[in-house]
Amino acid sequence: MRFLDQTLLPQEETWVETADYRVVAEAIRRLQVRGAPLIGISAAYGLALAALESAATEADTLQHDVTEAANVLRATRPTAVNLSWALDRCLRALESAPDAGAARETLLRTAREIHEQDVAANQRIGAYGAELLPADASVMTHCNAGSLATGGYGTALGVVRAAWTGGQLRHVIATETRPLLQGARLTAWELKHEAIPFTLIADSAAGSTLRRGLAGAVIVGADRIAANGDVANKIGTYALAVLAKENNVPFYVAAPTSSIDLSLPSGDEIPIEERSADEITAVRGVKITPNDVDAANPAFDVTPNGYVSAIVTENGVARAPYDESLRRACQTGVPARG
Amino acid sequence: MRFLDQTLLPQEETWVETADYRVVAEAIRRLQVRGAPLIGISAAYGLALAALESAATEADTLQHDVTEAANVLRATRPTAVNLSWALDRCLRALESAPDAGAARETLLRTAREIHEQDVAANQRIGAYGAELLPADASVMTHCNAGSLATGGYGTALGVVRAAWTGGQLRHVIATETRPLLQGARLTAWELKHEAIPFTLIADSAAGSTLRRGLAGAVIVGADRIAANGDVANKIGTYALAVLAKENNVPFYVAAPTSSIDLSLPSGDEIPIEERSADEITAVRGVKITPNDVDAANPAFDVTPNGYVSAIVTENGVARAPYDESLRRACQTGVPARG
Repeated sequence: MRFLDQTLLPQEETWVETADYRVVAEAIRRLQVRGAPLIGISAAYGLALAALESAATEADTLQHDVTEAANVLRATRPTAVNLSWALDRCLRALESAPDAGAARETLLRTAREIHEQDVAANQRIGAYGAELLPADASVMTHCNAGSLATGGYGTALGVVRAAWTGGQLRHVIATETRPLLQGARLTAWELKHEAIPFTLIADSAAGSTLRRGLAGAVIVGADRIAANGDVANKIGTYALAVLAKENNVPFYVAAPTSSIDLSLPSGDEIPIEERSADEITAVRGVKITPNDVDAANPAFDVTPNGYVSAIVTENGVARAPYDESLRRACQTGVPARG
Repeated sequence: MRFLDQTLLPQEETWVETADYRVVAEAIRRLQVRGAPLIGISAAYGLALAALESAATEADTLQHDVTEAANVLRATRPTAVNLSWALDRCLRALESAPDAGAARETLLRTAREIHEQDVAANQRIGAYGAELLPADASVMTHCNAGSLATGGYGTALGVVRAAWTGGQLRHVIATETRPLLQGARLTAWELKHEAIPFTLIADSAAGSTLRRGLAGAVIVGADRIAANGDVANKIGTYALAVLAKENNVPFYVAAPTSSIDLSLPSGDEIPIEERSADEITAVRGVKITPNDVDAANPAFDVTPNGYVSAIVTENGVARAPYDESLRRACQTGVPARG
C-alpha cells in the first residue's frame, strides 16, 4: 500500500509504502491519511495487508488474524463511521470465502471495490451538489473534503470541482481549520493544483465573511451523519452552520452514504474524538503558549439537522425530514429525491 | 517611555525603552503594544515624547511639531477609537498652554492622567462586570482584553479578575485568537500569572463549547463602540456573539467610555483594519500554506447591538436601547443605570 503523508503537506510530498497493517493504523491515528472516506478505504487495504501477512492456511485461522487486525484499525479514530463501515463490509465479505487463499483475494477485491466505488460516489456527489449552487457562486468550505480526504475527487471539494468545471463557480473561501490546518495546508494545495481561485481566511473570520455577503453557500464534508440528519464534522462546522443560517446562506453537507450511520437516532450519540492538547499549544512544531497550559481539543462537533439545508449523497440530495430522506438515500439505486 | 514588546510574549519578556515617538508609532503598528486602551495611552505618551524632542521655543511652533507627530501616531491603526480619542484630548489640552515649556508639561501630565484614569476605569469596569456574572461561573473570553491591553488590570479580563477575587469565578475558557494568537500567548500568560484556572481552545471550538453549556457567559473587550451599541472588536467576536445568543449564553462587552464613539450612528461606519496576508499564511514565522496563496485578514469585525446583552463601562452597565444608555454612560459621573 502506498499513501501520501498528509502531515507533511504542503511543504513536502512524501509517499509511504508499506505491507504492514500496523503502519496503516498508525498513519490513520497520526492523520498521515485522514478524511472519513479515505480512512475507510485505508482500513480496508490495511485489512488486506493483514491477510497477506498472516501465515494462516485455514480460513478460520485467517479470519481470526484478520479480525485482530480489524480491531487495531477500528480503534484508531472514533468519529468517522466510514472506518467501521469499511471494516464490517470486509469482514462480511470474508465470511463466504471457502479457504484462506480465497479469503485473501476477497479482502483485496473488497478493498479495491470500496476505493473505486468511493471515487464514483464522489463524482455523483459532485454532479448533484453543483446543481444546488447559485450561478457564479463564491462558496465557503471548511477543513479538507477533497481528493486527499477520499478515494479521489472529493465530497465538498468534489462539488466545488464539478461546479468549477461547469463554469458555475467564481471563487472559493477556505477556512484555515485550526488546529491541524487542513484548510490552509490541504485544501489550499488541492485548489492551487486545480487552479481554482480561492481566498484563505482564519476560522474566526468566517462569521463576518458570511455577514458581509461574500459567500453564496457553505459546503462541508462529514465524518458521521446520524439517522436524523445531525452531522459530525471537523470542529468549527457547527459554528459555520449557525452563522450561515443567521445570514441566510445555505449550508450543505456532501458525503457518501458510507458516512451515514442509521443506527444512531441523533448526533448526541456520535463519539467525539478528543485529541492531544499539543495540537493547540503548538503550531507545526512551534510552541505558541506559555508552558503547562490546559487546552481542550475536540476534533469534531455536531451540527443539529435544523441548520443543514441539504445533504448531498451519491444517490441524490436529501432534505428535511432527514429520517426519511437519508433512509431512502441509503437504499442503493433509489434516489433520495424525485 | 518603556513598554513590554508583546509580539515576543510569552516566550520572551523584553522591555523596550525609547524617547522617540516614531518608535512608539511603529510599536503600535507592529502590535508590540496593542489593545484599544493601551494604544490610546501609548499614543499620548508618544505625543509627550514628540514635545520633548521638539527644539521649538514658541508654543505655536511646538504645537506644529506635536500635531505632525499626532498625525503619524493617528495613522498607525484605524479601528480602535481610543487612539484618536487620546490624541485629541492631548491636543485640546495643549491649546491652553501659554508657552512651550508649559505645553510640554501639559502633554506629559495629560498622558499620565489618561494612563491613571484608564487603570481606575478598569477597576470600576471589573466591579460592575463581576456583578453580572453568574455564581461559580465559567466565562469565555476572546483575544486579550487584560492588563496587557490597557493601562493595567484590563477590561474583559478586569471583570474576570474581579470575579476571581470575589470568589465568584470557577474557570476561564480562552480562545486562541488567530491569526496573532493573543489568547494563546497573552491571555494565557496573564491568567497563569494570576493563577486563574483556564482552558485554551481553538477559535473554531467556541461554538460547540457554548452548545455543550460549558460557559455561563462570554465577555470581550472592544476597539470601538458606535452610538447604537454596535461593537467593533477582534475578528471572531461577531461569531462568538451569534453563537452565544443561539445558545442562550449572555454576551457582555467590557470597555471604557473612551472606546465609545458617539459620532458614529452605527457600526457600519467603523473602519475595519485589513492586515497583511502573511499573518494568515504563517504562524510565528512558520509558513503553513503553499506559496502564493491569497488570504484575507480583517483584524476586526462588527457585532450588531442585538447580540450584545450589556456593555460594561466605568460609569455602569449600559443595556439596550444603547443610543440612550451609552450617551448617559459617556456623561461622566452619571451612571448608566439606576
